[in-house]
Amino acid sequence: MKDVQNERDHRNIPIDKVGIKNLRYPIRVKDRRDGTQSTIASINMYVDLPQEYKGTHMSRFVEMLHLIKPEISLKKFSVLLETMKQNLDAASAHIEISFPYFIEKQAPVSNAPGLMDYNCRIIGSSNSHNEIDLVSEVNVPITSVCPCSKEISDEGAHNQRGVVQLQTRFKKFIWLEDMIEMVEACASCDVFSVLKRVDEKNVTERGFANPKFVEDVVRDIAERLMADDNITWFAVSAENFESIHNHSAYAQITRGTLPAS
Amino acid sequence: MKDVQNERDHRNIPIDKVGIKNLRYPIRVKDRRDGTQSTIASINMYVDLPQEYKGTHMSRFVEMLHLIKPEISLKKFSVLLETMKQNLDAASAHIEISFPYFIEKQAPVSNAPGLMDYNCRIIGSSNSHNEIDLVSEVNVPITSVCPCSKEISDEGAHNQRGVVQLQTRFKKFIWLEDMIEMVEACASCDVFSVLKRVDEKNVTERGFANPKFVEDVVRDIAERLMADDNITWFAVSAENFESIHNHSAYAQITRGTLPAS
Amino acid sequence: MKDVQNERDHRNIPIDKVGIKNLRYPIRVKDRRDGTQSTIASINMYVDLPQEYKGTHMSRFVEMLHLIKPEISLKKFSVLLETMKQNLDAASAHIEISFPYFIEKQAPVSNAPGLMDYNCRIIGSSNSHNEIDLVSEVNVPITSVCPCSKEISDEGAHNQRGVVQLQTRFKKFIWLEDMIEMVEACASCDVFSVLKRVDEKNVTERGFANPKFVEDVVRDIAERLMADDNITWFAVSAENFESIHNHSAYAQITRGTLPAS
Amino acid sequence: MKDVQNERDHRNIPIDKVGIKNLRYPIRVKDRRDGTQSTIASINMYVDLPQEYKGTHMSRFVEMLHLIKPEISLKKFSVLLETMKQNLDAASAHIEISFPYFIEKQAPVSNAPGLMDYNCRIIGSSNSHNEIDLVSEVNVPITSVCPCSKEISDEGAHNQRGVVQLQTRFKKFIWLEDMIEMVEACASCDVFSVLKRVDEKNVTERGFANPKFVEDVVRDIAERLMADDNITWFAVSAENFESIHNHSAYAQITRGTLPAS
Repeated sequence: MKDVQNERDHRNIPIDKVGIKNLRYPIRVKDRRDGTQSTIASINMYVDLPQEYKGTHMSRFVEMLHLIKPEISLKKFSVLLETMKQNLDAASAHIEISFPYFIEKQAPVSNAPGLMDYNCRIIGSSNSHNEIDLVSEVNVPITSVCPCSKEISDEGAHNQRGVVQLQTRFKKFIWLEDMIEMVEACASCDVFSVLKRVDEKNVTERGFANPKFVEDVVRDIAERLMADDNITWFAVSAENFESIHNHSAYAQITRGTLPAS
Repeated sequence: MKDVQNERDHRNIPIDKVGIKNLRYPIRVKDRRDGTQSTIASINMYVDLPQEYKGTHMSRFVEMLHLIKPEISLKKFSVLLETMKQNLDAASAHIEISFPYFIEKQAPVSNAPGLMDYNCRIIGSSNSHNEIDLVSEVNVPITSVCPCSKEISDEGAHNQRGVVQLQTRFKKFIWLEDMIEMVEACASCDVFSVLKRVDEKNVTERGFANPKFVEDVVRDIAERLMADDNITWFAVSAENFESIHNHSAYAQITRGTLPAS
Repeated sequence: MKDVQNERDHRNIPIDKVGIKNLRYPIRVKDRRDGTQSTIASINMYVDLPQEYKGTHMSRFVEMLHLIKPEISLKKFSVLLETMKQNLDAASAHIEISFPYFIEKQAPVSNAPGLMDYNCRIIGSSNSHNEIDLVSEVNVPITSVCPCSKEISDEGAHNQRGVVQLQTRFKKFIWLEDMIEMVEACASCDVFSVLKRVDEKNVTERGFANPKFVEDVVRDIAERLMADDNITWFAVSAENFESIHNHSAYAQITRGTLPAS
Repeated sequence: MKDVQNERDHRNIPIDKVGIKNLRYPIRVKDRRDGTQSTIASINMYVDLPQEYKGTHMSRFVEMLHLIKPEISLKKFSVLLETMKQNLDAASAHIEISFPYFIEKQAPVSNAPGLMDYNCRIIGSSNSHNEIDLVSEVNVPITSVCPCSKEISDEGAHNQRGVVQLQTRFKKFIWLEDMIEMVEACASCDVFSVLKRVDEKNVTERGFANPKFVEDVVRDIAERLMADDNITWFAVSAENFESIHNHSAYAQITRGTLPAS
C-alpha cells in the first residue's frame, strides 16, 4: 500500500508544526497531596516536517499516547517530547496539554471541605538541539473588589468574579498548587466551592477590606515572581467579568528571559 | 440529473424537523428608536418531511433567505414561515434567529452615552393548521447584590454579573426594548457600557440598597408578567456568575398556556 | 446569624427550579467493561422552592455532592434525587450531569487500540409524588457521506464529520455503550481515534458504500428504537458539519410517551 | 471625588497592557465591492501604564469608541491608536477587533448567489516611538480531500470541512477579500452557502481531483506569500475537522520579519 505521506515534496518549504489538535484523553496528573489525580485533557501534539517529505504520520501521535497511558508531570514531559521526535523522525516536538485540576479546599471558618477546579495547561517543546522548554499555566478564579467604587461610594463596592492566568518558566519543578496559592493570595479574596454563612461573612469582609484593581492583582503577582530566583520568565494577566459592565477589565505583565530558539 | 432527495422512502417515518443550522447572516431588526438596526444573526430553519420523501432540499433554505434580504420583525415572521412551507412543500415550518441587539443607554448621572449589547432570539413556528406560534427571547446582563452577604457582614456585600433570560408568548407585538427594560428594573442594578465616576458611585449605592437573590429576580419579573394581560406564557431564569464561587446560582419560573400543538 | 433565605416571602410565587449550575466535579461513571471510569462532569442541581420561603440554601447542594463522592449510575440517581429533596426540604428535585465518556475501540482492520470520547449526559427528576424520570443522552461523532453528491458526481462524494444526539427514556437500565453502538451502526461509518493505512482504506470504502443523508441517519435510528420495547420515549437528531458549506444540515425525530408531570 | 486610579503607585512595576476586553460593538468595515459593510465586532483595547500610576481610566476606552462611531479600515487604525495614546496619557496602544465579514459569492455553475461568512481580525499596535504595527487575519472555511485516502481506497476519499487561519503583515494595504481568495485557491475546493445540484457535482469532482493534506494547504499558501514582495511576515495554519476522527489534523508555517519592538 502506497505511503503518500512519505513521498518527496518539491516545494522546498519545511513546516514548523504538524500534528493533531483537540484530542480529548483521560490522563493522570501529579498531585501535591495525593500523588496523582485523574482528569480529562485536551491535547495538541506537533512536530516539524523537513522540506523533503510530503506529510507526517498522524496516526502515530495518538498511538504513542495510547501506549504510554499518560501520567503527566513536568518531569515526564521531556521523555514524551523525545519519544515524539523518534517516532516521527522529527527534529523538534511540541505538546500542549490542557485539563481541569482539582484541589480540596476547606471553607475559611467552618472548615467545610469542597473541591475547587482550576483550568491548567502544560506546554513543552524540544528543539533541534534537544533543548527542552517547559511552560506551566494555571487559570485561577478570584474575587475582585473595586477600590474606586469603595472609595467614592457611601456604602458597598462593586465586586465580581475574575480569572488570573499565570504562565511560568522555571529552573526547578514547581507544583501547580504553589502557583495557584500564590495567585489566590494576591486577589481581594479567593474563591471556594462550599461556603456556609460564617464563611460567607468572612469572604465578604475580607474582600471588602482588600480592594484591588486588575492592575493591582497583576502587579502584586509580578512583585512576588520577580523576587523568586526560581522563576526565569512569567506572563500574568487578570480579567474581571465586571459586575457593572457587560465587558471585562484586563491587565497583563510579561517579564523575564525566553530561551534562545 | 437524478434528484435523490425526491425519491420515495420506504421506512414510513415522517421527520419532525429537517433543515439548516447555524447559518450566519446579516439581518436588519426592527428597532423602537431608529426604525431598524443592522446586526449579524445565527439562523436555524427547519420544515417537517412527510414519510414518503427521502430528503428535503437544503439549498432552498439559504436561497430563500438570500432573496428576501431579511428585515426581521415579529410581524414578518409569519410571511417567512409560510414561504418556507410553500418553497419546501412542507406542512410545518420552524425558525430560530439569534442575534446581538444594541440599545443606546445613557449613564445614570453623567448621561454619558454608550451602547449596551443584548443577546436576543426570535423563535417562530407554523403548524399544519397554519397556526403561528411566536416566542421572543432576551438575555439581559444585570448586577446582582447578595442579600444574605449584606445582612451578615459588617461591611460590603458580594455582588456579581448575572444574566436573566426571558422568553414570552403574547397577544400583541411587544418590543425587545420593553422586555429588556422590564428585566433591568427587577435587578439589583442594571449594567452600562460607559460609567464615569459619578455614575459608578450611583450604581454601587443603588445595587447595595437593593440586594436580590436569583430567587427574588425571577419572582419580581414573574409578578409583573402575571399581571400583564398581553403575556400568555413566559419562562424566566436568572443565573449569577457568583463572585465567591466558580459556579453559578440559578432560578427559573415558567407560567402560562402553551398553544395547542 | 440571621438566615435571610429562611425568611417568609410575600409574593406568593413558588419557584420551579432553584439551585447551582455549571459546577465542575470529578465523578466515576458505571462502565460496561471496566466497572467504572473516572471523568469530569459539569453538574446542574435544582429543587423547587415553595412560595413561602425567600430562598434556598445553595451551599447544601455542593456539600451533598462532596459527601457522596459521586459514583454516577442510573440506579444511584434516584438516591441522589431523594437526598436532595430531604436536605433542602423540597417537593421536587432535578439533576443534569454532563461528562465526556471514553470507550476503547480497536481500528477495524489493524485492530490498533484507541480511546474514543463521547459527550454524555444523564438527566433525572423526582416530582412531588416521588416519581422518578430518567433520561440518558449520548452525543456520537460519525462519518456521513452524501448520497446526492455520490449519485450525481463522476467520482467521489462529499463527506464530513457529523454528530448524532440521542436521548432515551426506558423501562430497564441501558448502557451508554449500547446507545452509542446503535448510533454508530446507523452512520455511513463510525469514527476512530487511531487508524493505520489499512484501516483508513476500510473506513473510506465502507463510508462510500453506505451514503446517508441526516434524514437517513435519524430514520434508521428511529426505526430501531421504535421496534425496541424497552424504549418508552426518544429524541434523536443528526447534525452534519457540511464539508461544502459553512453551516450544518440537521434532522430531528421525537417519539414516545412522556411521563405524566 | 477622589481619583483612585490617578494615585501614585509604589511598586515600581509598569504594566504592559491594561484596558477593556470582549466589548461587543457594531462597526462598519471597508468592503472591496460596496465601500463598507455593517457587522458586529468583539473589541479589545489596551494601553501601557507607567509605574507611577495606580490605574488606567477604563471608561475612556468605551467613550472614545462611542465618539468615533468606528468605521474600521487599516488606514484608520493608526488614527485610533494615536487617539488612545492621547486620551489615556499612554506611551503605547494596542487594539484587536474581531468580526464576521460577509462576501457575496456565486455558486460555480448555476451562479446562484449566496453570502459567505468569514471570521476576520485586525490587530494594531503603536509603540513608544509611534511606530505602527498592523496584522490582518482571515479565517477561511475550506473543503479538504485526503490524498492518502484517495490513493489507497478503491473508491471515494474521506474529506471534511477545515479552516485556514492566515495572518499577514504588509507594506501597502491589502483587502481581506484578496487574502480570502488566495486561501480558497489553495484548498481542495472552496466552500459556498448556496449550491444547486449542478454546483454540488462541480465541487465534489473539483475537490476529488485536487486532494490535499493540511501540509499541502499551508505550503501552497506559503509559496504564494513568499513570492509576494508586499508581504513582510505571515503565519498560516490549516486545521481539518477530520471526518474519520473526533480530533483535528493541523499544520502551521510562520515566515518573515517581525517589526523591532
